[in-house]
Amino acid sequence: MAWFFFRSMMSADEGTPRMREIAGHVRRGAMAYLKQQYKVVGIVFVVLAIVFAFMAYGLKVQNPWVPFAFLTGGFFSGLAGFFGMKTATYASGRTANAARKSLDGGLKIAFRSGAVMGLTVVGLGLLDIAIWFVVLSQFYQGDNMALITITTTMLTFGMGASTQALFARVGGGIYTKAADVGADIVGKVEADIPEDDPRNPATIADNVGDNVGDVAGMGADLYESYCGSILSTAALGATAFALAPEMQMKAVIAPMLIAAVGVFLSIFGIYLVRTKEGATMRDLLRSLSVGTNVSAVLIAAATFAILYLLEIENWLGLSLSVITGLSAGVIIGQATEYYTSHSYSPTQKISEAGQTGSATVIIKGIGTGMISTCIPVVTICVAIMLSYMFANNFDLTMSASSISHGLYGIGIAAVGMLSTLGITLATDAYGPIADNAGGNAEMSELGEEVRHRTDALDALGNTTAATGKGFAIGSAALTALALLASYVEEIKIAMIRAVEGGREFIHPLTQQVFDPANATMPDFMEFFQVNLMNPKVLVGAFIGAMAAFLFCGLTMEAVGRAAQKMVEEVRRQFREIKGILEGKATPDYGSCVEISTRAAQHEMIFPSLLAIAIPIVVGMLLGVAGVLGLLVGGLAGGFTLAVFMANAGGAWDNAKKMVEEGNFGGKGSFAHKATIVGDTVGDPFKDTSGPSLNILIKLMSMVSIVMAGLTIAFA
Amino acid sequence: MAWFFFRSMMSADEGTPRMREIAGHVRRGAMAYLKQQYKVVGIVFVVLAIVFAFMAYGLKVQNPWVPFAFLTGGFFSGLAGFFGMKTATYASGRTANAARKSLDGGLKIAFRSGAVMGLTVVGLGLLDIAIWFVVLSQFYQGDNMALITITTTMLTFGMGASTQALFARVGGGIYTKAADVGADIVGKVEADIPEDDPRNPATIADNVGDNVGDVAGMGADLYESYCGSILSTAALGATAFALAPEMQMKAVIAPMLIAAVGVFLSIFGIYLVRTKEGATMRDLLRSLSVGTNVSAVLIAAATFAILYLLEIENWLGLSLSVITGLSAGVIIGQATEYYTSHSYSPTQKISEAGQTGSATVIIKGIGTGMISTCIPVVTICVAIMLSYMFANNFDLTMSASSISHGLYGIGIAAVGMLSTLGITLATDAYGPIADNAGGNAEMSELGEEVRHRTDALDALGNTTAATGKGFAIGSAALTALALLASYVEEIKIAMIRAVEGGREFIHPLTQQVFDPANATMPDFMEFFQVNLMNPKVLVGAFIGAMAAFLFCGLTMEAVGRAAQKMVEEVRRQFREIKGILEGKATPDYGSCVEISTRAAQHEMIFPSLLAIAIPIVVGMLLGVAGVLGLLVGGLAGGFTLAVFMANAGGAWDNAKKMVEEGNFGGKGSFAHKATIVGDTVGDPFKDTSGPSLNILIKLMSMVSIVMAGLTIAFA
Repeated sequence: MAWFFFRSMMSADEGTPRMREIAGHVRRGAMAYLKQQYKVVGIVFVVLAIVFAFMAYGLKVQNPWVPFAFLTGGFFSGLAGFFGMKTATYASGRTANAARKSLDGGLKIAFRSGAVMGLTVVGLGLLDIAIWFVVLSQFYQGDNMALITITTTMLTFGMGASTQALFARVGGGIYTKAADVGADIVGKVEADIPEDDPRNPATIADNVGDNVGDVAGMGADLYESYCGSILSTAALGATAFALAPEMQMKAVIAPMLIAAVGVFLSIFGIYLVRTKEGATMRDLLRSLSVGTNVSAVLIAAATFAILYLLEIENWLGLSLSVITGLSAGVIIGQATEYYTSHSYSPTQKISEAGQTGSATVIIKGIGTGMISTCIPVVTICVAIMLSYMFANNFDLTMSASSISHGLYGIGIAAVGMLSTLGITLATDAYGPIADNAGGNAEMSELGEEVRHRTDALDALGNTTAATGKGFAIGSAALTALALLASYVEEIKIAMIRAVEGGREFIHPLTQQVFDPANATMPDFMEFFQVNLMNPKVLVGAFIGAMAAFLFCGLTMEAVGRAAQKMVEEVRRQFREIKGILEGKATPDYGSCVEISTRAAQHEMIFPSLLAIAIPIVVGMLLGVAGVLGLLVGGLAGGFTLAVFMANAGGAWDNAKKMVEEGNFGGKGSFAHKATIVGDTVGDPFKDTSGPSLNILIKLMSMVSIVMAGLTIAFA
Repeated sequence: MAWFFFRSMMSADEGTPRMREIAGHVRRGAMAYLKQQYKVVGIVFVVLAIVFAFMAYGLKVQNPWVPFAFLTGGFFSGLAGFFGMKTATYASGRTANAARKSLDGGLKIAFRSGAVMGLTVVGLGLLDIAIWFVVLSQFYQGDNMALITITTTMLTFGMGASTQALFARVGGGIYTKAADVGADIVGKVEADIPEDDPRNPATIADNVGDNVGDVAGMGADLYESYCGSILSTAALGATAFALAPEMQMKAVIAPMLIAAVGVFLSIFGIYLVRTKEGATMRDLLRSLSVGTNVSAVLIAAATFAILYLLEIENWLGLSLSVITGLSAGVIIGQATEYYTSHSYSPTQKISEAGQTGSATVIIKGIGTGMISTCIPVVTICVAIMLSYMFANNFDLTMSASSISHGLYGIGIAAVGMLSTLGITLATDAYGPIADNAGGNAEMSELGEEVRHRTDALDALGNTTAATGKGFAIGSAALTALALLASYVEEIKIAMIRAVEGGREFIHPLTQQVFDPANATMPDFMEFFQVNLMNPKVLVGAFIGAMAAFLFCGLTMEAVGRAAQKMVEEVRRQFREIKGILEGKATPDYGSCVEISTRAAQHEMIFPSLLAIAIPIVVGMLLGVAGVLGLLVGGLAGGFTLAVFMANAGGAWDNAKKMVEEGNFGGKGSFAHKATIVGDTVGDPFKDTSGPSLNILIKLMSMVSIVMAGLTIAFA
């Protein structure tokens, strides 16, 4: 279907020679960047794969499949980003051209191109999972440990996907926001020219950035979430039903089945998205909502059927866990819309604050963003408790066996939340395509009416992007929780391997020999003293929360530094190239692309490696208790910080749009300048630091899982 | 000594009639506000005391002393703020007058007046502790439970102090920053008049705000930290040494002795602070450093002597725990200075970013603030591990008994960090006095030279305030950890009471009857399943981290709203009162004071009550596991957020000062306007939301401790 949508988009006309030329600039810039990015990331991957190979074959503290699983995870994740971006760069010019005729035409091209990305991500994800499952099934067979080994091994390819995703989000995020911030500061604030104006030397870099950051970055990110949630749930299922072999297989394939059926129902939803000429913003939004909501309802219904027909134990409870996850995603999406759309009072008040200057805009935006963490966090908390309870036979008490059933419920809730990814990602990837279509229309100097249509498509993209981010963040939290439990499983396996190698573990409280093979989850908690009075757990939690802030700080600083360079370059061109502002001379777009590329390549390395290094170091110094503290601290702190940053950024963006629509003085007014400052500050919040946190949270878990053997060797 | 310093300050001349008049305005405004504040807080206290009385005497789920302890804690905390503020409002005019003659004269008056506050806080704290100790000793005597009961009962007066402190910090913080932000936006940015200019209608409110926020608020805050650390350590000591009665008493009084000796050595240090005319900023800073560092070194030496002479078990290890805390405080203070002083590159780079506009200033400031969390968090983590290890006979392994010894070590490290409070608080309270002296000099139109001297004193105050905040935050983290352990003790007592009342607790894993009286810390962890796989713990951690963000968001919004009103009022006066900008008409200062007062009173209620309500609700819904998750999540997330906000705010403030000193274009330049926006955004960061978080973290622990009986009744 992705191929079909791609072909049908490619058959559309790309418009005037000027439009083709601009689209070509952006496409070549984006591809050149991606090539450069993959080169750097490729080196990192090769180095890490060698380290893993040494750990697996030299030190023998690791599963022998890890190096290969790691590489395939990274490869497929990168591939998803590549396909998405290729499509997006072909689609934006064609969207602008279709918008010359009708709004519906523009929407269809943009949205179906977004669907290419959505379907590629889910398709590649399920393909990767299926291939590994078949391959590993040849090697491990027989007892109840076979499925546990297969699923935990498969989980390690998630680390490859996470690593790729983090580089893509951070690199792409720095690239796009350096260009965007730089372009806005000099163009909009100082020179008073509109966004995407061809006279602005940073315009092409800005448009390239939308593709490499928002499309390729997001594709890699959600590929990773999607696979992570399915794989960790499968691993939890293998453990929870370890004593009932016929149920074990069902529990492992249940999340895969739900995801697979979700793909078909997403395609059905994609066909429902259409609009007609003269549609208002509300109509457009409704047309997208129809698609996503119908898919969601159908998946909910299908879940009951799948789990019932599968004859899995407690099928009703597990179905309700899936519905819980799906509903939590919808609620978080709605809350995100409430806090970031200028149809509601929080964002309207930020616009209003523009009348008293940029300082109050920033203060209000930060306040709103922080307050907006409440609903998503409470929703996730309720979802955790409910999905745990439903999956545990509608019971909240905890015994040794109920914990693993409950945790399986949390995992399958994450799968539920992501089961509509085919269509939600389509609405998400649609955003940057529409944004670029607007850029193309502006630079090609198409008529007022066309620009008006692309503006409508773009504004819609802002809202869907906010909702999409809500899903991404919510699913990251649930997936990370499931990974927490998978980590303990991986530790168990590493300990069993150590015992087989002749090592003996002495229980710290009873002073007796501890047998990992027959220990339950509470036994492990007691053995490693993973309780909140253990200073190692507390120190881990502190480091985890700090890691989220440090990571955000580093990426914010990177954007700030690169944006300053961009501002200086654009100012230099305005000063030195005569006639540029009158439109008589062509700016040097290439030098701005160069600044963004260099900054992104240079600045993405340190924060990304830090994210990999922290869990390893904590594991070696503080052991299992420290790592679990780290993951929980990072999850609680990072999730909240991510919601804050994404929502504050989204609200600032739309507060500015509201002023531009003629409120509080309209374009060029004092309030407009003030809200532009807010929007500019919000850029790295919502597109660099905030979304990278989702990946950080999961990457830290993935690294811990893969490094479990090393932690045990040091413990 | 506080009385002596107060008298000696009062005997100094208050200067010209104009100076007296202005000081009188500020003094009356501050006192009027404090009266109003105490009225509102008084009502809250009476209501809460009635609730506690009902719980103690009606429901019998609580210690009968709680209502009284709660009230005295609140009363003494308020008293410390009142004395400090009274002194400060008398001192600032006199400081300005002394600065007319010499820099040393100004420094001495300002600093010794700050010392009044420092000594009042430590004096009242120790007095309150001593009185309660004597009173309760009359009622509980005999077995090893007596001291445990006494110390845990005393701990509950900490909740009174925390509640008072939170209201003082939030109310005062909103008051001062509404005025400051409003005054800056219209005065500095729009009308281009200097800070504290008498033509600005918000000037008096701004100066009143420095007193009610930075002096009274800080006094109540640190009173609470000081008592909290001593009391929680005493409670931990009573438990750790429960089986050795002669050691038990020693462990209880050790923190009190260290604190008491610290008071005398602080006084010694206060006498060392002096300077001479023509002193540079560096000289001034050195003279303050000499005082605090000499005190710190002497206290370190005294600790060895005290604990050796006390013949307490493992005296050497415990002394090293104290030194660890003291050193951690110094390191955090130094790190704070590095990230917020414009002598170092992080703040200089924010100034530099001013050349590319306010958006890059904000982005860089947020980035710097986030990165600056790294050193304090790592320092606290190392301090936790070391002080735990030292106190546990130099051993990091954990058994049932070693945990309580180790936790006692963490508590006594917090006492060590706060043992120099007499002098560190003096350097801290000195800041707003110097700031107000500058305001007085400006409004009284004293000569250039005087203003130059008060500017030097004020700049020094900014640095010491940053360092003081480092101590406040660091000690809050360690105290909160100690309170975590005290909470489990309080739960134990509540369960013993319930068992005596005929209730039976069944262990969820073994299904046997659980006997709280003979259970160890690890037993309680297992009974309540306080491990990181329990969804209740995870949900608690999410809520804790979110509570910190929500609380900050609410206070930021409150400042934003109030500041907008202030801006509108100042603009109205500039527009409607003719001749105001030419200095021919007097502005209506009263209406601005009114706006700040109303905003503070109105806006402080909801966030403060929320902080009290959250742990109660979590306790009732999720039990002990949920509460401990909440406290750890709140601590890890809140501590990091607090450091970020305090440091970002401090760095923005000094980045602006650096531009004002003539860099990047100096006063009135593009960079100056950009850095003023940063400074304005930073105001609520560093003086409202950030410091309130320290109290929030501890208040949530205190509420949990006091409500332990209710949690058990619901469990």
